[in-house]
Amino acid sequence: MRYEESNLYRLRHSAAHLLAQAVTELYPGAKLAIGPPVENGFYYDIDFPTPLREEDLPKLEQKMKELAKLDQRIERTEVSREEARALILDASIPSMGPDVAEYKLQLLDAIPEGETISFYNQQRTDREGVLHRFLDLCRGPHVDTTKEIKAFKLMSIAGAYWRGDVKNKQLTRIYGTAFETKEELDQHLYMLEEAKKRDHRILGKELGLFMFSPRVGTGLPLWLPKGATLRQVMIDFLQKEQVKRGYDPVVTPHIASIKLYEKSGHIINYRDKMFPFMEDHTEGSEKDTYILKPMNCPFHIEIYASQMRSYRDLPVRYAEFGTVHRYEQSGEVTGILRARGFTQDDAHLFVRPDQLLEEFIGVVDLMKTVLNKLGLTSYRARLGTKDPNDSKYVGHDDNWKLATAAIEEACQKMGLEYEVSPGDAAFYGPKLDLIIKDALGRDWQMGTVQVDYNLPERFELEYIGEDSKPHRPVMIHRAPFGSLERMIGLITEQYAGAFPLWLAPVQISVLAIADRHNERTLEVANELRETIFDTRNLRVSIDDRRETLGKKIRDAQLAKVPYMLIIGDKDLENGTVGVRSREDGDLGPMTLEAFLAHINK
Amino acid sequence: MRYEESNLYRLRHSAAHLLAQAVTELYPGAKLAIGPPVENGFYYDIDFPTPLREEDLPKLEQKMKELAKLDQRIERTEVSREEARALILDASIPSMGPDVAEYKLQLLDAIPEGETISFYNQQRTDREGVLHRFLDLCRGPHVDTTKEIKAFKLMSIAGAYWRGDVKNKQLTRIYGTAFETKEELDQHLYMLEEAKKRDHRILGKELGLFMFSPRVGTGLPLWLPKGATLRQVMIDFLQKEQVKRGYDPVVTPHIASIKLYEKSGHIINYRDKMFPFMEDHTEGSEKDTYILKPMNCPFHIEIYASQMRSYRDLPVRYAEFGTVHRYEQSGEVTGILRARGFTQDDAHLFVRPDQLLEEFIGVVDLMKTVLNKLGLTSYRARLGTKDPNDSKYVGHDDNWKLATAAIEEACQKMGLEYEVSPGDAAFYGPKLDLIIKDALGRDWQMGTVQVDYNLPERFELEYIGEDSKPHRPVMIHRAPFGSLERMIGLITEQYAGAFPLWLAPVQISVLAIADRHNERTLEVANELRETIFDTRNLRVSIDDRRETLGKKIRDAQLAKVPYMLIIGDKDLENGTVGVRSREDGDLGPMTLEAFLAHINK
Repeated sequence: MRYEESNLYRLRHSAAHLLAQAVTELYPGAKLAIGPPVENGFYYDIDFPTPLREEDLPKLEQKMKELAKLDQRIERTEVSREEARALILDASIPSMGPDVAEYKLQLLDAIPEGETISFYNQQRTDREGVLHRFLDLCRGPHVDTTKEIKAFKLMSIAGAYWRGDVKNKQLTRIYGTAFETKEELDQHLYMLEEAKKRDHRILGKELGLFMFSPRVGTGLPLWLPKGATLRQVMIDFLQKEQVKRGYDPVVTPHIASIKLYEKSGHIINYRDKMFPFMEDHTEGSEKDTYILKPMNCPFHIEIYASQMRSYRDLPVRYAEFGTVHRYEQSGEVTGILRARGFTQDDAHLFVRPDQLLEEFIGVVDLMKTVLNKLGLTSYRARLGTKDPNDSKYVGHDDNWKLATAAIEEACQKMGLEYEVSPGDAAFYGPKLDLIIKDALGRDWQMGTVQVDYNLPERFELEYIGEDSKPHRPVMIHRAPFGSLERMIGLITEQYAGAFPLWLAPVQISVLAIADRHNERTLEVANELRETIFDTRNLRVSIDDRRETLGKKIRDAQLAKVPYMLIIGDKDLENGTVGVRSREDGDLGPMTLEAFLAHINK
Repeated sequence: MRYEESNLYRLRHSAAHLLAQAVTELYPGAKLAIGPPVENGFYYDIDFPTPLREEDLPKLEQKMKELAKLDQRIERTEVSREEARALILDASIPSMGPDVAEYKLQLLDAIPEGETISFYNQQRTDREGVLHRFLDLCRGPHVDTTKEIKAFKLMSIAGAYWRGDVKNKQLTRIYGTAFETKEELDQHLYMLEEAKKRDHRILGKELGLFMFSPRVGTGLPLWLPKGATLRQVMIDFLQKEQVKRGYDPVVTPHIASIKLYEKSGHIINYRDKMFPFMEDHTEGSEKDTYILKPMNCPFHIEIYASQMRSYRDLPVRYAEFGTVHRYEQSGEVTGILRARGFTQDDAHLFVRPDQLLEEFIGVVDLMKTVLNKLGLTSYRARLGTKDPNDSKYVGHDDNWKLATAAIEEACQKMGLEYEVSPGDAAFYGPKLDLIIKDALGRDWQMGTVQVDYNLPERFELEYIGEDSKPHRPVMIHRAPFGSLERMIGLITEQYAGAFPLWLAPVQISVLAIADRHNERTLEVANELRETIFDTRNLRVSIDDRRETLGKKIRDAQLAKVPYMLIIGDKDLENGTVGVRSREDGDLGPMTLEAFLAHINK
């Protein structure tokens, strides 16, 4: 069922009205504007006579609770335009009257001629027998009684221009949320709290992963030593997997002549996402216009096209950790989840049509391996297929059928749950997007695999078939991480910064209890640094500062280091180290060999 | 002694005259223009009545040999301007006369009033007693007799505009070279032959290292799988060395706002080397101008400046394989030796003044390690110091002395031969450049270390000293390779593409003699691929094509693969592989274990 048709949606709409009723009773003279349900709750835009502050929300929320309990019936009335105008201007109704009618009158005028005009009313009689009505111009629907609104919370206030137009007056928007049960509300609030704690922008700063600088620019992350290490570990891991699977590494420029993007069609189809061009305004025959690359594909195509290919040479699989730039609106940039410069774990496979199924299965298998290694075990797939009624698609129907069947078969073979989303294909071929559910139950659209008949056509790519005639290869575009930045953002939130041992930028911190243990601390650290773990040398830091052990432990905990090795007098005597695990706490003294056996198990 | 004052220079100048004399005798009507000595020889520009072809050079060279042997005295005469004009127009002298005087008359007119005008004459009397003169307007000096010109060769012809102006007539330029001895000439010709065979642009193509594409642009290399692998091996090697030495990796954007480069001073000092800017011409408050980074330093500075630093935190060493772009004139671009986009193995060390010596020694030690590993064992250093009479330098004299002394002491400690080049410092501090002598004796300026007082000043960098007061750190910029592209270009020529085992993109090729050996070939390849060599998995290719063994061996030889393992019937029986080494030829059958022991020794 669509959210808009759900009871939850009605409930939240009614909660917005309840908020407005409370405002009307607590802040006479407040002018109501609009109050719709939204994705995670509701809001109401209100023009207050004196500014509302965050601190006022508990009082408002208390009033809402009192009003809700009164079991006011929420009733719909349909009226004529004249009756509506009269109601809005009726000063005897608390939320109405000429003084507060400004926005409602505009809303009324905006209702097209001939459309039903309705009000929703909720009213109560107080102990003194006085009737209190709350009436609001509204299309509905709503729940039946305010009593149903029992699990809600006001979240925050913000400024919002009337009708979203900066030329209009700025109103106060009160955000709230509501659920059908207290448990669901609590779960939601817990999730929000958790999400805040896990915000990759905050953790990224605390853990020293990355930074931004206004002198460098919006959406252009600078990777700090720990973040750069994390990137490298992820790149190494994927690179090794790719070598095993017959991918060839390539490295291509960050810029190209405009000629390349004219040929690829990006100048026509993708210009609004591209950074401003580098135009040489000097005179001379060698001047050219250069473009910061928004995609790696045309470069890999140039490499494919640079020599004659035989059917025996295919599939050709070119992989590159290629940094691309997209000129996102600065309002859309979100930390490293959506940056203007980011590194795709990109690859392009040039395959014969008869190889498509096998290669697609190989790609999905690789993606599965990658996600499992990253601990992202809950994911589903969305298969974007051709809309048969749309003519925008390029390529032959037979190819589309082959490709779509290949994707479906690949998913079935891998046991990958997928939904079909007709019309969601790229114009050049069907695609499969992976949607990951994280530890907080949030969905993230990450990696993608696309089948492409268009670029091979545009660049006139060929291979010589067994029949000695030229044939056209099919391209597969794929990126298991999607982007390195986005994936690091996701796993930072997923693990709340406590990366698993193989990924942790610092895997082990060696702590000296006192100065006299410094020498051994260095020895232990150097021995560990020479040790290979998960195909790389162990990453070890030393804490030999003149601080208390307590402070050193706290700092290592804040840095979420998986293991601390603490070295004191006993350890010098016995040749041991005191092991503290981030997950399991104090594991007691061990020899280094025992510790290495422990982490390798 | 300067080349221009050497006997060799005079000899080459006389060889040019000898060439002109031969032309005059063989091609009557040829108009002589100019014929100077140049770096590796000499040339003469001549306007021939009918075009000269490369095939005509042997005949000319033969004529020169005959003329040289005649022991003609080369004699100088000084004349007045009028006498000079009369000589040039004297049709009785073979190289003179109105028909061929065009260029010499212009040269005469170009000699400033008051300057000495001289001719050089060489003459002989033939068997019939006829006098043959060759007279040329020339400042000299020359050798005494043509007999001294005994080791020379004509190299090539090319077109050259009179006075280098495209609006003038195109003349024929004949290039030649001359040496004092036959041995030196032969050595030079051998070197040229070798250099041609080793040209990295040709080898880069043959070995599949990199390519260029006109659609991508001048000086922007695309790295093919083998080249990308070679890059990665070199990066891995240096990265590991750097981690050992306490460097921290960082990764910074390829572009930045113009604000960063205004602060760094690049906009003023470096603009002509920068690519055209990315200027956002749309309206809106968030528009900015972006610049493709020409240098990594300002980014590393932003990271340093992003947090408070204590004297205990220093030295901070940020390392990045950072791709930078410089808008070189397309005529200056040379393969990957001088590209427009290239990757620096860059690092910036932020040090306390009292740490400068030790850190400098550390850097020079790292550079030495890098060059030795690459087999570049012949190098010297050039120390660029301040010119005491020039006021362009920034920073205090005390700091300059400290830094210069640090560099000198570092070189002495490392036993690194160096020459002092006063006035060759950067304006912000002294520097040390490394000049490598390659296998052909050619000099290559590669890595550099620079001490910098300027950028810390411009960016107001600080650390809190032991005295709790702010102090300014010193920066060291350094790049042991210089650029990855240039270094790969150099070592490609140094090794003539036959990279040592640890560097070779493909280390081992496993060859099946017939189809029935394919299974074992794959087994052997996979076993090797699982084997770690020099900290990385072995890089192994398979040749199971239906080709003759001879063809397979030839192809592996052309690809300069260090080892071939050949698998036939005997090997299936005995569990061996037939080993062929690129350097030592056939090593006979061995077990895999014996082979691995061999390459590890």
